[in-house]
Amino acid sequence: MSNAGDGTIGVGMVGHAFMGRVHTHAWRTVHHFFDVPLTPRLAVLGGRDLGRTKAAAAKLGWDAVETDWRALIARDDVQIVDICTPGDSHKEIALAALAAGKHVLCEKPLANTVAEAEEMAAAAESASANGQRSMVAFNYRRVPALVLARQLVAEGRLGKIRHVRAQYLQDWLSDANAPMTWRLRKESAGSGALGDIGAHIVDATQFLLGELLTGVSAVTDTFVHKRPIEGDPDGRLDDVTVDDAALFLGRFPSGALAVYEATRFALGRKNSMRVEVNGELGSLAFDFESMNELSFYDGTDEEQTAGFRRILVTEPTHPYVGAWWPPGHLIGYEHTFTHEVYDFLTDIHNGTDPVPGFTDGLRVQKVLAAVAASAGDHSAWVSVT
Amino acid sequence: MSNAGDGTIGVGMVGHAFMGRVHTHAWRTVHHFFDVPLTPRLAVLGGRDLGRTKAAAAKLGWDAVETDWRALIARDDVQIVDICTPGDSHKEIALAALAAGKHVLCEKPLANTVAEAEEMAAAAESASANGQRSMVAFNYRRVPALVLARQLVAEGRLGKIRHVRAQYLQDWLSDANAPMTWRLRKESAGSGALGDIGAHIVDATQFLLGELLTGVSAVTDTFVHKRPIEGDPDGRLDDVTVDDAALFLGRFPSGALAVYEATRFALGRKNSMRVEVNGELGSLAFDFESMNELSFYDGTDEEQTAGFRRILVTEPTHPYVGAWWPPGHLIGYEHTFTHEVYDFLTDIHNGTDPVPGFTDGLRVQKVLAAVAASAGDHSAWVSVT
Amino acid sequence: MSNAGDGTIGVGMVGHAFMGRVHTHAWRTVHHFFDVPLTPRLAVLGGRDLGRTKAAAAKLGWDAVETDWRALIARDDVQIVDICTPGDSHKEIALAALAAGKHVLCEKPLANTVAEAEEMAAAAESASANGQRSMVAFNYRRVPALVLARQLVAEGRLGKIRHVRAQYLQDWLSDANAPMTWRLRKESAGSGALGDIGAHIVDATQFLLGELLTGVSAVTDTFVHKRPIEGDPDGRLDDVTVDDAALFLGRFPSGALAVYEATRFALGRKNSMRVEVNGELGSLAFDFESMNELSFYDGTDEEQTAGFRRILVTEPTHPYVGAWWPPGHLIGYEHTFTHEVYDFLTDIHNGTDPVPGFTDGLRVQKVLAAVAASAGDHSAWVSVT
Amino acid sequence: MSNAGDGTIGVGMVGHAFMGRVHTHAWRTVHHFFDVPLTPRLAVLGGRDLGRTKAAAAKLGWDAVETDWRALIARDDVQIVDICTPGDSHKEIALAALAAGKHVLCEKPLANTVAEAEEMAAAAESASANGQRSMVAFNYRRVPALVLARQLVAEGRLGKIRHVRAQYLQDWLSDANAPMTWRLRKESAGSGALGDIGAHIVDATQFLLGELLTGVSAVTDTFVHKRPIEGDPDGRLDDVTVDDAALFLGRFPSGALAVYEATRFALGRKNSMRVEVNGELGSLAFDFESMNELSFYDGTDEEQTAGFRRILVTEPTHPYVGAWWPPGHLIGYEHTFTHEVYDFLTDIHNGTDPVPGFTDGLRVQKVLAAVAASAGDHSAWVSVT
Repeated sequence: MSNAGDGTIGVGMVGHAFMGRVHTHAWRTVHHFFDVPLTPRLAVLGGRDLGRTKAAAAKLGWDAVETDWRALIARDDVQIVDICTPGDSHKEIALAALAAGKHVLCEKPLANTVAEAEEMAAAAESASANGQRSMVAFNYRRVPALVLARQLVAEGRLGKIRHVRAQYLQDWLSDANAPMTWRLRKESAGSGALGDIGAHIVDATQFLLGELLTGVSAVTDTFVHKRPIEGDPDGRLDDVTVDDAALFLGRFPSGALAVYEATRFALGRKNSMRVEVNGELGSLAFDFESMNELSFYDGTDEEQTAGFRRILVTEPTHPYVGAWWPPGHLIGYEHTFTHEVYDFLTDIHNGTDPVPGFTDGLRVQKVLAAVAASAGDHSAWVSVT
Repeated sequence: MSNAGDGTIGVGMVGHAFMGRVHTHAWRTVHHFFDVPLTPRLAVLGGRDLGRTKAAAAKLGWDAVETDWRALIARDDVQIVDICTPGDSHKEIALAALAAGKHVLCEKPLANTVAEAEEMAAAAESASANGQRSMVAFNYRRVPALVLARQLVAEGRLGKIRHVRAQYLQDWLSDANAPMTWRLRKESAGSGALGDIGAHIVDATQFLLGELLTGVSAVTDTFVHKRPIEGDPDGRLDDVTVDDAALFLGRFPSGALAVYEATRFALGRKNSMRVEVNGELGSLAFDFESMNELSFYDGTDEEQTAGFRRILVTEPTHPYVGAWWPPGHLIGYEHTFTHEVYDFLTDIHNGTDPVPGFTDGLRVQKVLAAVAASAGDHSAWVSVT
Repeated sequence: MSNAGDGTIGVGMVGHAFMGRVHTHAWRTVHHFFDVPLTPRLAVLGGRDLGRTKAAAAKLGWDAVETDWRALIARDDVQIVDICTPGDSHKEIALAALAAGKHVLCEKPLANTVAEAEEMAAAAESASANGQRSMVAFNYRRVPALVLARQLVAEGRLGKIRHVRAQYLQDWLSDANAPMTWRLRKESAGSGALGDIGAHIVDATQFLLGELLTGVSAVTDTFVHKRPIEGDPDGRLDDVTVDDAALFLGRFPSGALAVYEATRFALGRKNSMRVEVNGELGSLAFDFESMNELSFYDGTDEEQTAGFRRILVTEPTHPYVGAWWPPGHLIGYEHTFTHEVYDFLTDIHNGTDPVPGFTDGLRVQKVLAAVAASAGDHSAWVSVT
Repeated sequence: MSNAGDGTIGVGMVGHAFMGRVHTHAWRTVHHFFDVPLTPRLAVLGGRDLGRTKAAAAKLGWDAVETDWRALIARDDVQIVDICTPGDSHKEIALAALAAGKHVLCEKPLANTVAEAEEMAAAAESASANGQRSMVAFNYRRVPALVLARQLVAEGRLGKIRHVRAQYLQDWLSDANAPMTWRLRKESAGSGALGDIGAHIVDATQFLLGELLTGVSAVTDTFVHKRPIEGDPDGRLDDVTVDDAALFLGRFPSGALAVYEATRFALGRKNSMRVEVNGELGSLAFDFESMNELSFYDGTDEEQTAGFRRILVTEPTHPYVGAWWPPGHLIGYEHTFTHEVYDFLTDIHNGTDPVPGFTDGLRVQKVLAAVAASAGDHSAWVSVT
């Protein structure tokens, strides 16, 4: 079932906006740089509007289009369903794809509610027994610098972890006149900064530590309550129904304290996903605006020459980057997705479950729900169960 | 009362450890660089142990010593009492000095409890009517880069403030075998990281915004509960009775959200007091490990060339630094105290109340108390009243 | 002649090592992100060894292979010849391709000698009249940050230029046991660090200033004279016959002074191509290890807030990057080649001569020759004519 | 002779401008932080104008004044003569002071010509036999980060050195209307950027490597030939008779290649004295605008985590800084002078010759002369003999 028997595997992708563009690039590129057991075929692109979907398929390089995602799933030339739609349709599409025996790659956050995510995780688990693979697209797990960071933590190079501080700072909503989008509507996006970018730092820190948050205390707020409807001739405004910023404190089972901040109002910070971890033996710092670098303080260095090392994570021995260019030649944002589909194709071939799977997506969803609950209850501590 | 009539003014300083050393340098240096109306005389140094106090006075350059701080206060050659002792003695000394008609400079935090701080603030206010000046030594208000930052906020260059993120990160307790000190005992220090370094970022951010925090949600923790008694022949351990780390969320009346973290367990961060502020029109970032620099993002710059500016705050027109060296020649930690006593001497001469006064110290104390209360109540929101 | 009449254009590429890999990615990717008037077809890959060339074609995605570059040039399905071989074969291939009526993209340096480069430039000029386009692949001219830098200089934002300092620092030869390669042999490479990476900073600075160097004074040296032959069972060594490092001073007609350094022995610097320019009104700084950033000092800013701005060159209005991802999402090394072929295809369609053309390549070659001449004459000044 | 017998030693300082102010601070401060065998007394300040010298003495804290430097030298209460005048008077004052049996601290550059410097070095050598100590004030040798750098080189942590790149960049002359000063007149200053700031990077790199430059190839230029006379009512201009910028290449006996650039026209660089050294085993980088930091790349680190370490040179075990504040508390520009007089006083007491002595000053002078000679001979190589 997993492939066409000729070493290729057909992909059907639903959605062709920002995420669709970057996923397409990954499917199109992966086998030219990595040794994949299965070469992806860009079989079908799904979109609601026929004209726009055809135009997108032509530009992006997809062989066919479907305007009904159910038809896309049903096609024989599709073995992988790649879900690049807003969060409100993730569950329905994923469950249908799994029911149809397909592998599923789903954009994050996995869903808009814990209940949806639970259904999806359960379905994925059942399908796994049937040889189907499911993955949630937390692409920051495939940033070479963060994979190296995880290796250092796992090897004990940081010792016992005491502190985690994570921020995801953007500024594209800082202007109060920036237009309304589906990302600002609770029905479509589930939440605001929390699910859009907060989900990334929750997942990334749980990945780095290899632990799950046990509880949180949170504050959320909405700074701009009404925004212009793009292109509206009468200049009407629409209601923002999600958080503009989410701040929370958390704890890990090992005793580490954590602090998180997600906002799209940090003027001047374009895509600053930052993580810093302090352990008893070492510390790490990362900023996605310098994504090819990892800062590492090795507490076992002699005092005279100890200092944060700016590791340029572009050596052939670093995770993933040997497939690209010589040392010092940077990679960019899209490469994280190419790494992701490389691992996904390998898992499909090997019959191993991808990480992060839907269960990991569910775990993040539970944290988001706890954050919302605490913010709604005067910041009182809420356990993540 | 305020001076000896000859253009000088006598200082009596209680305590001669770290803070005593840096205050002494300021008193000894200020008039050589700044135009002060009153030249400080290093009249009397107070300390409990006669031998050690005499040795310190000789090294630091004080004319006389007293082992009883009450005797120090009573001396005619002392017009300013400078309190450099642990927090548990601040109130008693300050009240006595004010009662004796002296001006008072007191190290931070102002006191170990809100009740003490209230008494001190009330006494300072009464004394002010009598021409006596009181100041609390939040020296970060005299870092030129932070004064410039405050000016930019006050001028509206950042517009409405949305976010404040402040961290004070040190690592001298990261080693679980670092010895016990008075700073780890609740009776002497009041609290741990919270009062020692958290107080600085609370005061600095309230200074930067010109607003007071309205409430907080907090988590505190102690990582190492017992530490070796320095020099103990039997290797005995003593109990740490304060927080090792304090994390809290807060709100300002203008609607800005704030997040704070104070710890002495951030391995590799030696004295990283960081503040970042995002407003509707601009953003600022500062790190005390690069204390001569301020990062400023001006949102009104054209998009093509907008970016965080690394301002080297060493130009003659920048606050305080014209008194020192040419552009690009850095100043260090101790200069902030020289600026502090410069302003204090000027206030004494002008009959104006110093900022930050004891009331500002009380305001910080109230935030610290609210943090402790929230941390003790499952992080539930606590208003600062 | 310029295309197949169906909106596509056939590419034949000679060479499939490092440069071949990155050029291929550009040809394969450009039309998916940019609006190109001609879509490249990966028609033929040329290489000397049939087996290895077939394997490379399969991996990289080329339709056919040729082991004789003359056969590749002769094919009807090839309209563009892309030369990715060492410098010693550039002239012969380029002249043959131009004689066959093809467009030519040639890797840098254009040739191994001035005489070769002159022949090539003359041939390209003649061919231009025939509608054929020629370009030399100085890809740093397509780094968005450097294009922005050029714009700022051209707009007069820096005023009269006084200083240029350029370094290209790598470290892959720092280990004296790193193996011999064709890049260390004068017959194949022409020169060492000088032509390999020095050529880039000469071209980039001439591009930034819009001026040509008038003369140079130089020092070159070889640190390691013999290196192991890779895979030699007897551990034999081969002679390094090129420079390991080239340093030179230069002058521009406008009066600017320049300093250059090219080395592959700067341990820890992986691919640090740095340029700094100081003008009467502003300054710029760039480092390819942070290739998405440009530092700009605007001397017309008020003194209080002037400072080098870290411009993240990822805004939609910045050169090229609007075609990629949202603000703050970095691009990498290979994107510069995609930008290059985008411009090349546009020029082919428009009938305009690409920049940098072979004449620009010749100009760089003359500087390299002057550097070698000065280094061979006790650093005496040598004019570039 | 070396002291007053009471543990103090009298200082007579000639000149009270920028250098006089910073030297005064060092004499006034050193014994309060360092254990010096001799406590300096600020005995006499020398200056040409009685009124201004008296005012300076009062402000800076000197006990007496002299308007004739010969009278100052002759005084019994002066054991150390500190020369803070422009270079044209260094020789005369130093020779007279040595003849009078005094110790001499002389600002850099040692003199305005090699001939003068040779006379001074010879006189200092003779005087040394008589127990008199002479030192030239290359204060960058007392920056803790550079002392640490020297230690790493001396310990072999960098292995064989291949590259040195040094820049001293300021911008105070970038404005063509900045007024004329003695620093721009050949008679008083000897040379321009070359002697003023180029001398510092020549000395600092010779110090770091423990080697002397063997030859140079140079270019110098003057960008602005006439400048306004400050305060002239008729707006007259005066002739600039020195270099505005000096660039040169050099070689060290060990085979290292070096490149230098000194300019006061690098807009935006306020006091950027930068040195980078690449060796076979490690690399170092330093910028005086971040003077508390040293970047160190240890080539023996495992590849995975190798990177330039940002060493905050503020640990108690780092050179000099244990005398100041706790880790992470920065020191500033003036501290380098305090370190300098600390070492000078120690040498006087111990009867050891200070480093850098007048011979070191002479060595720098010879390099400056070679640079000027090469620049005047079409950049032809000039040996330093």
